[in-house]
Amino acid sequence: MGTTSYLHLSFIFFIALFIFPHSWNPVTQKGLSVHAKFGSVLETKASKPNNLLTEAPVHPLDPLTVTEINTVRAILSSYVPFSRAFPAIHSLSLDEPEKSQVLEWKNGDPLPPRKAHVIALSNGQTHVLTVDLDLGLITEHVTNPGSGYPPLTAEDISVALQVVQSNEEFNKSIMARGIQFSDLSCGTPSAGWFGPDEEGRRVVKVQCFSTQGTPNFYMRPIEGLTLTVDIDRQEVVKISNTGRGIPVPKSANTDYRYVAQAKAPEMESINPISIEQPNGPSYRVEDRHTVRWANWVFHLKPDQRAGMIISRATVRDSETGEARSVMYKGFASELFVPYMDPDEAWYFKSYLDEGEFGLGVTAMPLVPLNDCPGYSYYMDGLFVSADGSPYVQPNMICLFERYAGDIGWRHSQLNNFQIQESRPKVTLVARMAATVGNYDYIFDWEFQTDGLIRVKVGLSGMLMVKGSPHENMYQVPTKNMSGPLVSENLIGVVHDHFVTFHLDMDIDGTDNSFVKVNLVKQETYPGQSPRKSYLKAERRVAKREKDARIKLNIYNPSEFHVVNPSKMSRLGNPSGYRVVPGANAASLLDLNDPPQIRGAFTNNQIWVTQYNRTEQWAGGLLAYQSKGEDTLDVWSKRNRRIEDKDIVLWYTLGFHHIPCQEDFPVMPTVTSSFELKPVNFFESNPILRAKPNLETDLPVCRPPGQS
Amino acid sequence: MGTTSYLHLSFIFFIALFIFPHSWNPVTQKGLSVHAKFGSVLETKASKPNNLLTEAPVHPLDPLTVTEINTVRAILSSYVPFSRAFPAIHSLSLDEPEKSQVLEWKNGDPLPPRKAHVIALSNGQTHVLTVDLDLGLITEHVTNPGSGYPPLTAEDISVALQVVQSNEEFNKSIMARGIQFSDLSCGTPSAGWFGPDEEGRRVVKVQCFSTQGTPNFYMRPIEGLTLTVDIDRQEVVKISNTGRGIPVPKSANTDYRYVAQAKAPEMESINPISIEQPNGPSYRVEDRHTVRWANWVFHLKPDQRAGMIISRATVRDSETGEARSVMYKGFASELFVPYMDPDEAWYFKSYLDEGEFGLGVTAMPLVPLNDCPGYSYYMDGLFVSADGSPYVQPNMICLFERYAGDIGWRHSQLNNFQIQESRPKVTLVARMAATVGNYDYIFDWEFQTDGLIRVKVGLSGMLMVKGSPHENMYQVPTKNMSGPLVSENLIGVVHDHFVTFHLDMDIDGTDNSFVKVNLVKQETYPGQSPRKSYLKAERRVAKREKDARIKLNIYNPSEFHVVNPSKMSRLGNPSGYRVVPGANAASLLDLNDPPQIRGAFTNNQIWVTQYNRTEQWAGGLLAYQSKGEDTLDVWSKRNRRIEDKDIVLWYTLGFHHIPCQEDFPVMPTVTSSFELKPVNFFESNPILRAKPNLETDLPVCRPPGQS
Repeated sequence: MGTTSYLHLSFIFFIALFIFPHSWNPVTQKGLSVHAKFGSVLETKASKPNNLLTEAPVHPLDPLTVTEINTVRAILSSYVPFSRAFPAIHSLSLDEPEKSQVLEWKNGDPLPPRKAHVIALSNGQTHVLTVDLDLGLITEHVTNPGSGYPPLTAEDISVALQVVQSNEEFNKSIMARGIQFSDLSCGTPSAGWFGPDEEGRRVVKVQCFSTQGTPNFYMRPIEGLTLTVDIDRQEVVKISNTGRGIPVPKSANTDYRYVAQAKAPEMESINPISIEQPNGPSYRVEDRHTVRWANWVFHLKPDQRAGMIISRATVRDSETGEARSVMYKGFASELFVPYMDPDEAWYFKSYLDEGEFGLGVTAMPLVPLNDCPGYSYYMDGLFVSADGSPYVQPNMICLFERYAGDIGWRHSQLNNFQIQESRPKVTLVARMAATVGNYDYIFDWEFQTDGLIRVKVGLSGMLMVKGSPHENMYQVPTKNMSGPLVSENLIGVVHDHFVTFHLDMDIDGTDNSFVKVNLVKQETYPGQSPRKSYLKAERRVAKREKDARIKLNIYNPSEFHVVNPSKMSRLGNPSGYRVVPGANAASLLDLNDPPQIRGAFTNNQIWVTQYNRTEQWAGGLLAYQSKGEDTLDVWSKRNRRIEDKDIVLWYTLGFHHIPCQEDFPVMPTVTSSFELKPVNFFESNPILRAKPNLETDLPVCRPPGQS
Repeated sequence: MGTTSYLHLSFIFFIALFIFPHSWNPVTQKGLSVHAKFGSVLETKASKPNNLLTEAPVHPLDPLTVTEINTVRAILSSYVPFSRAFPAIHSLSLDEPEKSQVLEWKNGDPLPPRKAHVIALSNGQTHVLTVDLDLGLITEHVTNPGSGYPPLTAEDISVALQVVQSNEEFNKSIMARGIQFSDLSCGTPSAGWFGPDEEGRRVVKVQCFSTQGTPNFYMRPIEGLTLTVDIDRQEVVKISNTGRGIPVPKSANTDYRYVAQAKAPEMESINPISIEQPNGPSYRVEDRHTVRWANWVFHLKPDQRAGMIISRATVRDSETGEARSVMYKGFASELFVPYMDPDEAWYFKSYLDEGEFGLGVTAMPLVPLNDCPGYSYYMDGLFVSADGSPYVQPNMICLFERYAGDIGWRHSQLNNFQIQESRPKVTLVARMAATVGNYDYIFDWEFQTDGLIRVKVGLSGMLMVKGSPHENMYQVPTKNMSGPLVSENLIGVVHDHFVTFHLDMDIDGTDNSFVKVNLVKQETYPGQSPRKSYLKAERRVAKREKDARIKLNIYNPSEFHVVNPSKMSRLGNPSGYRVVPGANAASLLDLNDPPQIRGAFTNNQIWVTQYNRTEQWAGGLLAYQSKGEDTLDVWSKRNRRIEDKDIVLWYTLGFHHIPCQEDFPVMPTVTSSFELKPVNFFESNPILRAKPNLETDLPVCRPPGQS
């Protein structure tokens, strides 16, 4: 849900403090990172080099460095169209080289030309620019390429809140409710797009909460008071004040901080338990972004919008030792989070969390030993603020080996062979957690030695709740409620989450095909068999994009393979990976509902498109207030050929969330996942020769505090 | 797949060695357990009392002890109807007391009368008996209550193989294929039921493999040679020999044992990694079967048929400290494993692995440090062989705490509050692994401190493969194949697995209701909202069993709650748990196909029935060769009232398996799961006050071998 970046608004001092971390963690002029307060609270056992941000790039996909960002800023400053005023930088990141250049590049080669992709706003106009760092020139410049706008900046949010402060009706309304201005915390949920009314200008909604008695102001909404603010014109467009009879829910029992807990823990304490690796972890991070572990190598980088990008994932062939391509690029491309309440103060809540706010920019420093186990390696992000200056997002990705007591494979046989073979499963996880306002999204990319990649999304944080006049369900005409009461005067509004992943699979090369292997019921003919029916696997190669729009259905089941039709196994099976859905949910909104038009990339759970380097963001490059004219759905409608082509697989992970009392005041993590799994990629089980665990492999440990 | 108990048949020495472990692990006459060879290969850090099997029962649900089993045997021996000959014991286990007696019982109370439930075969007749241990009497005795038979015994399998040995046509056929008798290993897949032909007698199929050059004879089928044996009459009923042109697949690369691996591991080695608990685990096992951990208490016992039974699971209320009932009993009730090949040698493969073979009887000793992490507690099973004598199934269940680096809940906020709260997730797992012939089923019951129970099934072991004349796919008319080639001359036949769980939920008491909370699309009316649509949660209480036959559908989504309508929260929400499906698959066979009639408990993914103590086994008490007249489907058709009644929830976890090369010669584990999750059961987040991990909680470890 997320969403909306909330900031504290003190009307007394006119100080707006906001969640964007670069406000407290700038990169100094010399380009050195300043360590985060929180990132260093607990030290980790895995080391991180200190010069992470000052070195030159060594890989074509390495993010821009401090020096490079400063160069881009200088180039933009001297660019004639911006000579009057430096524009607001909404996005500034590496413009990745052409795929062919990256694929040709080998370790030690000179890098392809370094370029930056910039989205800037100036006088209400959106500028999309390509900056060539080597040439020192802007080589491409398009103005207003779409109906939408780039993600909000911290400055946008600050402006919106300042505009609200000076609104007389707002101030009266707050006073009428008996709320102290010093207790006010306001947020800026994105406005969405609902037809022509708000077109042609950049608007945001402002809604407020009371912080009186709790840091968990999300549980104390000032219901029904919504302002629509034009960010660029700095004016209140509309004020809606419908919630006058609704009390601000009480603060009792809302504080979730450990220091604020007066009562004893709910249960008997659990003895210390940890994942221990006395010889240290087995992964290596080379040149800051190249991760090597067991049979995997991949490039891992933080990204201001996507949060975390995995590139050039290769797995070593279990027989030949060759590094074989699996995925060129994988990342969360967009989130769609519609709330299910048509009321004035709620209808617009249909967030595109990534295109409107960004997952990297909201990724908080991970908490060692709690967000990630010991022996984790932490990677910082280097992002760009609205004035074009770089800042550090510390400890935003962690990398760790995971042993959960699971079994890689096993078999026992106690006849004459008396076999007991079993192998423990150890995996490698890259994790980040984005706190998009109230919600926390935990993203895991987990790599297994058997070639499987599991992509997991966890949801925690706070519900987005609605104030209610009712204290309990007995008082409520339930049919009018948009969710159950989760505490007195608090409705947990029903909502969905959809996370759409861009999965540029390159199985043994760029040119792949998408194959649906359908399980089809066959009836036997009379006399054929005592059986009346059986299932048969039928392979259907998708010729065009329309053949690869998949709605999951357990009564019409299929496997979904991406194969390389030119790479056959010894047996003649094409080398492939399949996407294995886990629990999932589909969007059920009307296809013509404005939120669903913008979130049309969720109309199917799986899509395959022909590779196009501009098609990265499933909800469009400019998703803020967009009309949905640049979505995956629109691209797919071109119906391009996808057989034996460079193709991209898209998978959407969905959640329906009907809140319950257990979600108050903070939600236990809910998780769902999908897998990318080798299918006839290896000639045989690729972990056949894995070593079993022996007693002599165990570390010798003593309790903490004992010497 | 399972299934079929394979045994080695040496024709030279006429020795049949078989997988049933009691052949090598008898309980001595004095009732002492003899430790398994394999169970003691690696010592564990968690201790197990040695007198596990000799003590008297202390809980009404405790399994029968050695003394009690011997008493039952003595009672049966002196029972007049069995005076001529002691019957073959196919099942002998605790006849659990009436639920009301168990619920009334308190620690320290005298136990309700101890009874045994016995299924015995004598002269082809099935006897179902209740033996009262206190009275020393048989109090109930029913003969042939259904069309089916009880699970096979080791003796049945031995008989079938001996019958085959003396069959001339079989011997000729083996010789004609050039196979040495000393290389022969044969198995006894169950025959299923396919109409009147094989009714009225107990039959089993026999199929053979070559062990020449490999212990993994499953990969060397002697295709198309199938004998049908009447077990009780000890005769070959039918011999089918259709596979003459099909070679026995080669032995190369089939051996999966670590000692047999000549080549180096496939990848860089992984440094030692383990879950460490220097202060020891936090769970306690009291009185052999009562498990206490964090806020959970439950009774855990091995069962010859179900494998593992969880009873009387209670969770402590996070506010009042009261132990609250969640589940009276949970266990895997039946498995259905249909293969998708109508050929003479394959059509009958439609196993009911639990009712035909048993999950406890096939549960091998777990391999310490590989099947379960260090600090695991191992529980033995005490089962009964065909002659009525007890035997020990050693180390068949393990119990361990699991920390996988996951997050229990989190939230960050870097505005003026600067909050970074995160809690690690630690869980408790009870695990067993049943090796039903070729397949290994791993069962996990995982308990979370937030009240969630996750039930997970993992599949590993060997494929059931079909010999083929073709060495590669280029030679194959693929449309005739029942699966892809996974090695030369080896087809991995497509098949399904369905595991149906009996979940006797008792949420805060026995009388519960089943509520479907449907998410229904609502269209807004003109002028109501800029939104055209939203979803609304609509509660529907199931009145009768037909209202609770659920086919999962992501386009018609619901939550599925079991609630106590008499136990309302402070807010007026009924206390409940919901079943949360994970990835799942449905059976697509024709409803009138004989295997599906017997497996009709898979016709829906969720069912709710009125509690009836005799309705434990979803495929029927006597599942072997049954006609499906005693399935969950049949019971549900009675359409009993289920509102505010004692009800049982049934959930089926399904897998479609289209094999691939990676599954050869042993399959990497595939996993699926579902959850039982509190919904308005707690007044608020039950782990709000959980403690974060601190550096000072970590053990101090040194590498193995260093002092």
